[in-house]
Amino acid sequence: MSEAKVPSTAEISRLLREANAVRFGEFTLASGAKSDVYIDVKKAWTDPARLERLAEALAAHVRPTDRLAGMELGAVPLVVATALKTGRPYVIIRKAVKEHGTRQRYEGEIPPGAEVLLIEDVATTGGSAAESVEVLRSAGAKVERAIAVVDRETGASAKLGQLGVQFVALVTLSQLREARA
Amino acid sequence: MSEAKVPSTAEISRLLREANAVRFGEFTLASGAKSDVYIDVKKAWTDPARLERLAEALAAHVRPTDRLAGMELGAVPLVVATALKTGRPYVIIRKAVKEHGTRQRYEGEIPPGAEVLLIEDVATTGGSAAESVEVLRSAGAKVERAIAVVDRETGASAKLGQLGVQFVALVTLSQLREARA
Repeated sequence: MSEAKVPSTAEISRLLREANAVRFGEFTLASGAKSDVYIDVKKAWTDPARLERLAEALAAHVRPTDRLAGMELGAVPLVVATALKTGRPYVIIRKAVKEHGTRQRYEGEIPPGAEVLLIEDVATTGGSAAESVEVLRSAGAKVERAIAVVDRETGASAKLGQLGVQFVALVTLSQLREARA
Repeated sequence: MSEAKVPSTAEISRLLREANAVRFGEFTLASGAKSDVYIDVKKAWTDPARLERLAEALAAHVRPTDRLAGMELGAVPLVVATALKTGRPYVIIRKAVKEHGTRQRYEGEIPPGAEVLLIEDVATTGGSAAESVEVLRSAGAKVERAIAVVDRETGASAKLGQLGVQFVALVTLSQLREARA
């Protein structure tokens, strides 16, 4: 993949705005908190052309030895598209233990010591990312890097840092605000 | 896409067996029923090369005007990979109403009268397929065709037929049994 094909932060920002995945206004988040910005990357990933560009940007962070991982549902298309682009196998982490079947918290294979790159759609406090890291490490994976499409800059980086996980994002909320101005 | 690139039933059958997505033995299904065959397409779709071939086979059934749809979690990578291959937008149907947020049963857009091709990983009685059809039609979609990777041949085709949905599968359980022989 040539470097020129990797979308810039400005392109990612524009892509998310055009998909209505990022909106500025008055919103009540899932947590009940008020916010002046609404972010829902799912609105971008249901369009295959946009998903393709997001995957190009994520793929630039994938090392040849990585396996990919992400939690249902928001990260799944991102993980799948990035896996198809890089040829790397992946794991999907379930939100809760299945009531039946294998009772595993994840689908896919984690060989002992596998290097896993965690992919998220939106990072807020880092709670679900930390949970994913825990699930993956319990299964024997080495998780030292995580990447989100959007970083809301409300604690995820610090929380993951405490767990020894280096965190980056394709675009930060500050950058989205700047692009809006 | 050239016809020669579309995987044959025999290739799909082999691919599923090699991924341990189809196993013969003694199993208790999620429903509690006993079965001599265990089918879990997730074991195939976590490998991007296998997912790519499954998507090639599914894509051969996609019409230029179709939107794609599938229910979490089993169908999601199949829908995503087929969407990337065909450039068609897609909808993901949630298993249950979200407790917060938009409270929609699906992610993605369904324009009025949109022709939607439903994709499933495994069709058993057709219960979840019928539920998906109901969700999509309630949202204004026209759903006349459904496709599964594997048809266990235990009622899905008849159930969907009653709903006016034509059902096909990449491979049937009979074909998997024959391939085993």
